[in-house]
Amino acid sequence: MKFLEKLQKVQRKNRSLLCVGLDTDPAKLPSHLRTSKGAVVQFNRSIIEATSDLVCAYKLNLAFYESLGERGWRILKETLSAIPQHVITIGDGKRGDIGNTAEQYARALYDDLGFDAATVSPYMGYDSVEPFIRLDSKCAFVLALTSNEGSNDFQRLNIGGRPLYERIVQAAVKWNTKKNLGLVIGATHPKELQPIRKLAPTLPILIPGIGKQGGDLESAVRFGTDKNGRLAIINASRSVLYASTGKDFAAAARNEALQLRDQIQKYRDKFFS
Amino acid sequence: MKFLEKLQKVQRKNRSLLCVGLDTDPAKLPSHLRTSKGAVVQFNRSIIEATSDLVCAYKLNLAFYESLGERGWRILKETLSAIPQHVITIGDGKRGDIGNTAEQYARALYDDLGFDAATVSPYMGYDSVEPFIRLDSKCAFVLALTSNEGSNDFQRLNIGGRPLYERIVQAAVKWNTKKNLGLVIGATHPKELQPIRKLAPTLPILIPGIGKQGGDLESAVRFGTDKNGRLAIINASRSVLYASTGKDFAAAARNEALQLRDQIQKYRDKFFS
Repeated sequence: MKFLEKLQKVQRKNRSLLCVGLDTDPAKLPSHLRTSKGAVVQFNRSIIEATSDLVCAYKLNLAFYESLGERGWRILKETLSAIPQHVITIGDGKRGDIGNTAEQYARALYDDLGFDAATVSPYMGYDSVEPFIRLDSKCAFVLALTSNEGSNDFQRLNIGGRPLYERIVQAAVKWNTKKNLGLVIGATHPKELQPIRKLAPTLPILIPGIGKQGGDLESAVRFGTDKNGRLAIINASRSVLYASTGKDFAAAARNEALQLRDQIQKYRDKFFS
Repeated sequence: MKFLEKLQKVQRKNRSLLCVGLDTDPAKLPSHLRTSKGAVVQFNRSIIEATSDLVCAYKLNLAFYESLGERGWRILKETLSAIPQHVITIGDGKRGDIGNTAEQYARALYDDLGFDAATVSPYMGYDSVEPFIRLDSKCAFVLALTSNEGSNDFQRLNIGGRPLYERIVQAAVKWNTKKNLGLVIGATHPKELQPIRKLAPTLPILIPGIGKQGGDLESAVRFGTDKNGRLAIINASRSVLYASTGKDFAAAARNEALQLRDQIQKYRDKFFS
């Protein structure tokens, strides 16, 4: 199935633009789990079971698994196998390397781990992105304007009157011949979302930065979606995962995800009905 | 020991600016090894034994290990344990993410795997680099002007009359308060090396792109080194690893590394004696 088709199907089925980021930090697990051997997998499974009818996607930040060493890879696989087939999975590694190396990364993420999508860094240009968009069943989300403080260091540099991140957006639109490119735009930049959406009217936009990072949810929905109120993927990680650190963590995560999903739907109804 | 001190020591000891890139692709192994179980580790160990007195560093491209899945991490560790302590190890993953995630990557590369250095992507700015330079025993090499074709897509964009990559170089120099930042500049851009070296006179420069990628070795030595003919780390991967695909692969790799090392020394003698 084409990536865009799969995304739209699950967004419709679950009435949700919400993505939950499984950036699981062993040090932040509920204390009753912390000592058990398969704690991270157990935690992830519980979060997935509690939220999979409320989300369109799960985003797994690879750093949190790599920092666990060899077993991190196993945990990654076991977590992925707990995610229902119809939900989008995003391997968030922000990879970017020369062509023959990018091929190896794409193989790891798509073939070995089976992710539907990956995040990629644009700095090294087209040949670093191309291996991630060979199949239209897979999507590459290109970093354009990220959610962090450091996004101000280079991404806004002035190129002939326009910011660098717009050049990245324009390139992504140009490279999008198979309709399987997306963008990463932080919800912490609400004013920039609308002009970016105008430049890329049909690309899915992955929007991190709500929750802990303080991004603006209303703008994310209003300007991050396409003209039909779709194609935004709005990510929350820590605020859902660690909604409670007690034994009720899964119920608390569900509650937080439910509230976010419904708040997003309320904004969709407001702007797109 | 400080990173710069370790680098200078091994460069002196082995009279070498050469770095061998252990980007081992199982499909390219000598046929007599290909069927054996620990083939990649066996191959890497042989290459290391055959070349460790001729190099200042080994660069391990993480993609080639990640594409092997769970056992890739084990192979990475076993390979690292075969590298003599006094030789620099560079984890080439071109990571770049928001602060709390970059911390996880730094933990994986420095604490779990024990690399001396890492390559990082600058696009997400200072907070994505900072976790990699907290200790002066560890070094982060920031991508500035990369060796690939795609380096022309964004890295040369005009910012107020100067190319983007110069802004990255200037930022790296500014961030270098602990003297543990470096740059990545492809040998495929010989004309740009001299002006970059002028902007960053004391930073180590990792220079990939000689060998298969066709970079210019003479310019790499002449303009990539500091005023004393040091602090360049000149990387060759495929041309050394696959110098022969027969049973003599290790001897052939040694021969290729020896020629490169000595050619580099010849240029150093020419320009810095």
